[in-house]
Amino acid sequence: MEKRGAALAFPKPGENIDPEWRLYARSASDDKAGVFAILTAFDALIAKGIKPTVNIKFVFEGEEEAGSPNLKEILTRNKDLLKADAFIVCDGPVHQSGRKQVVFGVRGDVNVDLTVYGANRPLHSGHYGNWSPNPAMLLARVLASMKDDRGNITIKGWNDDAEPLGPVEKQALADAPQIDGELKKQLGISYTEGGGKSLLDLINMPSLNINGMKSGDVGELARNVIPTTASAVLDLRLVKGNDVVRQVEKLKKHIESQGFYVIDHEPTEAERLAHPLIAKFTNRSGGYNAQRTLMDLPISLAVIGAVQAASADPIIRMPSLGGSLPLSIITEALNQPTITVPIANYDNNQHAENENIRIQNLWDGIEIFASLMTMKF
Amino acid sequence: MEKRGAALAFPKPGENIDPEWRLYARSASDDKAGVFAILTAFDALIAKGIKPTVNIKFVFEGEEEAGSPNLKEILTRNKDLLKADAFIVCDGPVHQSGRKQVVFGVRGDVNVDLTVYGANRPLHSGHYGNWSPNPAMLLARVLASMKDDRGNITIKGWNDDAEPLGPVEKQALADAPQIDGELKKQLGISYTEGGGKSLLDLINMPSLNINGMKSGDVGELARNVIPTTASAVLDLRLVKGNDVVRQVEKLKKHIESQGFYVIDHEPTEAERLAHPLIAKFTNRSGGYNAQRTLMDLPISLAVIGAVQAASADPIIRMPSLGGSLPLSIITEALNQPTITVPIANYDNNQHAENENIRIQNLWDGIEIFASLMTMKF
Repeated sequence: MEKRGAALAFPKPGENIDPEWRLYARSASDDKAGVFAILTAFDALIAKGIKPTVNIKFVFEGEEEAGSPNLKEILTRNKDLLKADAFIVCDGPVHQSGRKQVVFGVRGDVNVDLTVYGANRPLHSGHYGNWSPNPAMLLARVLASMKDDRGNITIKGWNDDAEPLGPVEKQALADAPQIDGELKKQLGISYTEGGGKSLLDLINMPSLNINGMKSGDVGELARNVIPTTASAVLDLRLVKGNDVVRQVEKLKKHIESQGFYVIDHEPTEAERLAHPLIAKFTNRSGGYNAQRTLMDLPISLAVIGAVQAASADPIIRMPSLGGSLPLSIITEALNQPTITVPIANYDNNQHAENENIRIQNLWDGIEIFASLMTMKF
Repeated sequence: MEKRGAALAFPKPGENIDPEWRLYARSASDDKAGVFAILTAFDALIAKGIKPTVNIKFVFEGEEEAGSPNLKEILTRNKDLLKADAFIVCDGPVHQSGRKQVVFGVRGDVNVDLTVYGANRPLHSGHYGNWSPNPAMLLARVLASMKDDRGNITIKGWNDDAEPLGPVEKQALADAPQIDGELKKQLGISYTEGGGKSLLDLINMPSLNINGMKSGDVGELARNVIPTTASAVLDLRLVKGNDVVRQVEKLKKHIESQGFYVIDHEPTEAERLAHPLIAKFTNRSGGYNAQRTLMDLPISLAVIGAVQAASADPIIRMPSLGGSLPLSIITEALNQPTITVPIANYDNNQHAENENIRIQNLWDGIEIFASLMTMKF
C-alpha cells in the first residue's frame, strides 16, 4: 500500500535518531504525545503550504485523568464555537501488534474508595490478634467475594444491562489479530481472569479491578500490629448500556450482601458499636458512561480511509478501547460523534512508572494527523 | 492489703506530676519502661542502704523485636555467668483491668512475608483489567481462605499440636476478671474474631494475623493500573506444643492447597510461564516457640508473693501472655524457668504510633522490682 502520510515528505528522524528509542516522562504517551503529534502535523502542513481539506478546531482537555469534572460545562458554554461533523480524539495506544487503529468507542469509568474498620486504635497483634477484628482480613474477604476463582465477576446483575455488539462490530473484532498468546508470554503470565475469555471479548464487557490496596505496612516498616483500617481503590469500567450510577449501586449492594453496613463517612462511635462490619464507600468523582460511534457513518468511513492512507499495513477497526475517555460528555454536550485515533505504543507503561513514547509512534502520529487534516470528506 | 513496695518509702511523684500523664516515645513502654524500672529500683535500694535478699544479675536484650537472632549464642557462651534460680523478665502490659499480674508464659512468634504476582510490568486497568491477573485480588483470595466468616482459622491442623492448659492454669484464667465487654466498648468494635471465644481463651491458642498488606497505591497516589505484585506480612503466634517450623509449614501447605506454586525467591521468567499462580513465601527470621513455666514451683510462688506485696489489689496470675518474648531461647540455652512481670499500661499503643507509658505504671514498676529484689526465697 502507498502511504499518503509518507508522500507528504516530512523530514524523517535522521541516522542519529533510532526510531526504537523512547522518550520517558510522566504522561509521555498519555497524553503529551497526542498533543504534540496534532500540533506538529498542523505546523508541518503550514510550513509546506498544504491547505487542510477540512475545517479544524483544536480542543485540549487537561483534566481527563481526574474525571473531566469541568469539561461538560466548558463544552456546553461553547456549543456554537465547537460545532463540527465529528470530534477526532487522540488518546490511548495503537494495537498490540503495532498496527494502527481507529477506535469507535471507549468504556466508561468510575473509581470507588472502600475502607473497612478494625478497633479505633492500633493493637498489638499478639495481645489482641484473632479476637479484635483485623481490617486487612475483612477487606480481603469482601474483595475476594467479588470474583470467583476463574476471575469472573460475581456481583449480582453486573453484566445485565451491557448492550451486545452488533454484526459490524463483531466482524471488526474477528478481523483483528489475535494476540493473547503472544501477550501472555511478553507479560510473564500463564493465567488470565475472565474465565478464559479473550482480551478483546473482555474489554467489551464491564470490568472491576483493584487499583490499590493497603492496610498497615509491609516490608521494613511492618510491625506486629492489627491495623485500624484497610482500604482499596476499585476501578469500574462500563460498556454501552451500563449506567455509572447504577453500576456503582450494584457494587454497593454486593458489599451490603456480605454483611457490611455501608456508609459514606468515617463511622461514629455509635455506628461502630451498632454494626459488626462497617465499610466506607465513596466514588471519586461522578464518573462517566461508555460511548460508541457507529462504524459505517460517512465520517467514520472517511477517518478509516485517512488513517489507512498513512499506513502501509491494513489498519484495525476497534469497536471500543478497554480504556476510557470522557467521550460520553462530548456526545451528550455537543450531540456529535467521536472517533478516537490513538498513536502511542501499547507497551508505554501508561499511568505507571517509566511511562514512555516510542519515537516511531510519535512520528507515525504526526503523519496520521496530517493525513486526517487533509482527508477526503 | 499493705503494700511492701510502699513501705520502702521512695519519694512519690509530687503534686506537679499527675500520675495519669503519659510519656510518649518510640518504645516508651516496650521496653524502655522495663529497663528503667529495674535500674531505678536497684539504684533506690542502694541509695536507701537496703540490701537485696537475692543475688541479682542483669541481662538487657536489644534485639527482641527482631527475633533475638544472637541471644541464644550469647546466653550459651555465658552459661556459667548467668547461672540462676530463674529469669525474671520485665516486658508486656499489666492486665486491662489495671491490676498487676505475673505471667508464666509467652506465645512463640514468627512472621511470614507473602507476595503474589501479576504481569511483569504495570498495566493500564482499562486496557488489560479483568484479563491480566490482578495480584491484589489473588492476595485477597488466598488471605480470605485462611479464616472462615466467623474469624476461625481454617488452615488444616492449625490447632492440632497445641498443648491444652492444665487445671491450675484453667483456674487462674477463671479467677481473672472478664473484660471483653468493656474492651469492645473502648475499642469501638461490636464483632470479634475466633468464633465468639473470649480473648483469654484465644490468646491461649495459636493465631494468625495480617500485620500489613499492600498492592499498588491508595488515596491520592492511586492510579488506574493493575499492580505487578501484592504483598502481606503475616504474624503467627504459637502456644506450648506448637513448633515454629511445623506451624510455618502448615501455612505454606495451605497456600499450595489454594493452587499456588510456592517459592522463596522472585519468580523466574520460566516459572512465571509454567505456573498460573505463584507465591513467594519467606519467614523473616527463624522465629521461636512458646514457653510456659509451672505456676506452683517454689520460685513461682515467691514471685507471686513479692508482686502481691507491692499491690493493694489482688494480682492476676496468667498462664500466658498473648504477646511473645524469646523465652524459649532462655529456657533452652540455660535450662532455667522464666517468669514475666509486666508493668506497662495495657493501652500503651505498643509497636504503633503514639506508644506511651503511664507515669503511675512506671512508678508501680519501680516498686514491684524493688519488692522482687527483696523477696523471700
